[in-house]
Amino acid sequence: MAPVSARHPEVQTALLAMIYRYLPALRWLRYYRREHLPSDVVAGIVTAIMLIPQSMAYAQLAGLPPQIGLYASVAPLIVYALLGTSGQLSVGPVAITSLLVFHGVSALATPGSERYIQLVLLLAFMVGAIKLALGVLRLGVILNFISHPVLAAFTSASALIIAIGQLKYILGYPIGGEHLYETIAQAIAGLSQTNPVTLAIGLASIGLLIFFRQGLRPLLRRAGLPPLAVTLIVSGAPLLSVMLGIIVALSFQLDQTAGLAIVGAIPAGFSPISTPAMTMADAQALLPTALTIVLVSVVESIAVAKALASKRRQAIDPDQELVALGAANITASFFSGYPVTGGFARSVVNAQAGAITGLASLVTAAGIALILLFFTPVFYYLPQAVLAATVIVAVIGLVDLREPQRIWRTNRGDAFTWLITFVSVLALGIETGIFIGVATALVLYLWRTSRPHIAIVGRLGDSEVYRNVERHPVKTWPHVVAVRVDESLYFANTRYLEQALLRIVAERPEVKHLVLIGSAINFIDSSALHTLDHLIDELRDAGVEFHLADIKGPVMDRLSQSELLTKIGQDHIHITTHAAMLALGCRD
Amino acid sequence: MAPVSARHPEVQTALLAMIYRYLPALRWLRYYRREHLPSDVVAGIVTAIMLIPQSMAYAQLAGLPPQIGLYASVAPLIVYALLGTSGQLSVGPVAITSLLVFHGVSALATPGSERYIQLVLLLAFMVGAIKLALGVLRLGVILNFISHPVLAAFTSASALIIAIGQLKYILGYPIGGEHLYETIAQAIAGLSQTNPVTLAIGLASIGLLIFFRQGLRPLLRRAGLPPLAVTLIVSGAPLLSVMLGIIVALSFQLDQTAGLAIVGAIPAGFSPISTPAMTMADAQALLPTALTIVLVSVVESIAVAKALASKRRQAIDPDQELVALGAANITASFFSGYPVTGGFARSVVNAQAGAITGLASLVTAAGIALILLFFTPVFYYLPQAVLAATVIVAVIGLVDLREPQRIWRTNRGDAFTWLITFVSVLALGIETGIFIGVATALVLYLWRTSRPHIAIVGRLGDSEVYRNVERHPVKTWPHVVAVRVDESLYFANTRYLEQALLRIVAERPEVKHLVLIGSAINFIDSSALHTLDHLIDELRDAGVEFHLADIKGPVMDRLSQSELLTKIGQDHIHITTHAAMLALGCRD
Repeated sequence: MAPVSARHPEVQTALLAMIYRYLPALRWLRYYRREHLPSDVVAGIVTAIMLIPQSMAYAQLAGLPPQIGLYASVAPLIVYALLGTSGQLSVGPVAITSLLVFHGVSALATPGSERYIQLVLLLAFMVGAIKLALGVLRLGVILNFISHPVLAAFTSASALIIAIGQLKYILGYPIGGEHLYETIAQAIAGLSQTNPVTLAIGLASIGLLIFFRQGLRPLLRRAGLPPLAVTLIVSGAPLLSVMLGIIVALSFQLDQTAGLAIVGAIPAGFSPISTPAMTMADAQALLPTALTIVLVSVVESIAVAKALASKRRQAIDPDQELVALGAANITASFFSGYPVTGGFARSVVNAQAGAITGLASLVTAAGIALILLFFTPVFYYLPQAVLAATVIVAVIGLVDLREPQRIWRTNRGDAFTWLITFVSVLALGIETGIFIGVATALVLYLWRTSRPHIAIVGRLGDSEVYRNVERHPVKTWPHVVAVRVDESLYFANTRYLEQALLRIVAERPEVKHLVLIGSAINFIDSSALHTLDHLIDELRDAGVEFHLADIKGPVMDRLSQSELLTKIGQDHIHITTHAAMLALGCRD
Repeated sequence: MAPVSARHPEVQTALLAMIYRYLPALRWLRYYRREHLPSDVVAGIVTAIMLIPQSMAYAQLAGLPPQIGLYASVAPLIVYALLGTSGQLSVGPVAITSLLVFHGVSALATPGSERYIQLVLLLAFMVGAIKLALGVLRLGVILNFISHPVLAAFTSASALIIAIGQLKYILGYPIGGEHLYETIAQAIAGLSQTNPVTLAIGLASIGLLIFFRQGLRPLLRRAGLPPLAVTLIVSGAPLLSVMLGIIVALSFQLDQTAGLAIVGAIPAGFSPISTPAMTMADAQALLPTALTIVLVSVVESIAVAKALASKRRQAIDPDQELVALGAANITASFFSGYPVTGGFARSVVNAQAGAITGLASLVTAAGIALILLFFTPVFYYLPQAVLAATVIVAVIGLVDLREPQRIWRTNRGDAFTWLITFVSVLALGIETGIFIGVATALVLYLWRTSRPHIAIVGRLGDSEVYRNVERHPVKTWPHVVAVRVDESLYFANTRYLEQALLRIVAERPEVKHLVLIGSAINFIDSSALHTLDHLIDELRDAGVEFHLADIKGPVMDRLSQSELLTKIGQDHIHITTHAAMLALGCRD
């Protein structure tokens, strides 16, 4: 017997659509165009070259041994390539997630200890499960509650915290401190213990990286090199500085002779299988960190993926992205990795290097796997200061103090949110800071909607258009006041509105009719219905009749279900403002 | 030299207006009309008759000796009469505030103890200070965040808690329990210890009170008594039941012979001066209770005052009400009282009895002062069961289970909020419950605004009116899609909107122009500006031009301050939807 799909082509199409939706890789694998192959392969290699030092550096930032960073850059990438909808997004360890891992887990266990790694695996699993659940339930919209100013401020502040946190590797003496000011104080107090060799290597690396990024790129461009070559050379800078660092450290045996901290032995071999050990108490303790990581990493990652996709006229499915990132993180927890997401800078490089499909990610994963299998002994002499330099140069570009100025120009409230978030993250810590930022944005929004803009409108020339009397040269009539309320009516603004309308009427004793224009009223709740009921009585007591105009369907539905509609009277409800004015004799 | 005001009449007027605003009593004192005097005096006496038993009963509910209730009914009333803007509001102890006092303070000290009373004084001071501050800063609008469903559910649930809490006085054995279910379980477990005499007196009082309220009023009315006499007789019921209770208890010495709990000695004399002892730790511990009392009592009190004032065509200034209630509570803390506010039932009686100005309140205060000075010994034999009956009958009318049904009909979300609040207050306690209620209302509101209603509109006949294609028979053109977004654009909905618009365009390959109609867009934040910027690029990539129409002034201001306006282009911004459609050739 033939399968169902063969007999019913439309079933086959629907099935295929569903499979394609949940396994987007099938689409590009099936229709893979051979001319894309070189481009994808080169992009994969370029990204791998960038990811090798980054993954080790970010692992160090997360309080983990360097191989964990490499492990997190193999299996999760393969899973993302199969499930993700972006061909350009470079999934793997990123700076801010690493910082969040460090802050969240170091409160529960000593960084680098067996228990610490166990907790990190559990965290990766939780992050993955939450993302997966949000994606499957198509609830990605929840993440929209992190607003642009909050994310911008959080990113800048976190980047500062990360950069300052790396000072201990550059200066060569231990610097702790839970809060930023403690870290700064300890850094200054210990300056006399600075290890000069470590400092020299760290500063040299920073100089090299900045030169490659800021100075070399324009030079190469002016020299006429093709863009791909420029990208390849510039993004190879971290690996170059790693190689130089290793050569110097090895040549002079600086770990023995000058007390230089080096990475040491990295076990060879593919990512070992791990099982995240789940206990209720640990899961509960890690939950705030997991939620923060989900919030921050997904918003960033989807934004990057979207921006890069639209340049190639490809489309991103945000919920499927959640599924893919969720699966990638769960994979990380079973292959000795740690939480991963799409990195901004690396994805841009990936796209510039020509990534078109998920094949680029597969090539990158293969590159990292090769390193793990054969080249780990090379990194024995890698100075930690070089990795710290990689982190510092990567994050310092995230500190954007011009963005709050741009925000200030368009929206003072949003600028205030930026400032509160920035200061809170620096002063009170990462998670508290972002929570305060989100809360500030919400409170400001509610505050704004609780004091709606109210405009008295008049007729614009001989048109049917009615506009604010304070902004336009419009015609009004003394016995009618037409008021447009620029907000939905709900509990937080309903009494404010009542006061405002009564004041408007009190200031105009000649007014006999008040027309409430509903063009901006998008819904009305039961508190507002109560207040309206009361307002109509008060207006009647003052000798003013109440009219409605331009009420939208959903609002009218609510009104009909209450007894208010009868109280207002059908003849006092008008389809448009103009109809209301004509009915009230405002013709001349 | 003449004072400034004599030389400048307009200064004098302004000064007077200010004095009148902050001391409203001056206005009614200065222009007092003699014909109002009998009405005010009778109302004051009627309210005093009602307040005597109520103030002692509510003090008992608050875990305080009865005289504290009487003290709270003298000095605070005088202060309110001078500063308040309502002539009808009857300030004094009320049931729900008393319950909140008991719950908040009994967690810190044993009810009735010296420390308990000290904490209650501090609480009254804090409640007063918060109200005063909100009033002076004109921040009363904050209280609007408690929505109608939350307040309705809270009131019903609290009334149930209060009524069940009074069972111990009616049954005559101790019933404790922090949560309602514990109280109910203890009440049932102890039924065999019921004191039959106490129960008989309690039930008789309840019967008498219900008869006066439900049965007698219609009888008297039908008998042709004037309304004032009816009000006087009906509102005298609590005092009558008090007198009967005293006579029965005294005659048979029921405290000795049958173990009846009586009020006992009440010290004679006017409210003693007290000073609230302020320590940081106590203030911190009491803050949640103080905030809850402010929230609940002010909303209720102002709503009552407004409703009664509008019947008499008088006006209420909500911020001045906060000042007056704040000053009344601070006064309570210095005259051995406890938190007071405007009571609903008592204020209605006050108004029905003819209260016109604050003089009625002054008469009431004088009546209570007389009781304190000369008649306290009378109340020695007052059975506690009679006071409990007063409380039960007063609050049981507050349980309104038809309101949620009314809410359900107009707004499912609000009905859900009602249910959550009601269940939370009963199951988790007063303060947690109201907090959960307020939070639920806010989250529902945000959720609603994060998924805005989006309508594709078309032309209604030959008018300039454009309405939803799904609700009206309208004309559309294939190359233009006009979309009205029924919500302000802000961080929580901006990505939802982007997805929705892209989907609309994707489903209509023939569309060349998208017109976004801004008639319901009341503001736009920086996150939305970012998303719009991105959306315009995406639409351009898809071969669709982006237009704006019907943008309001404040939104246009924001757009001009960003670079978005240049990107859209002046010729793509239209004053109305109709203008946009004409410009795009939609004429036929």
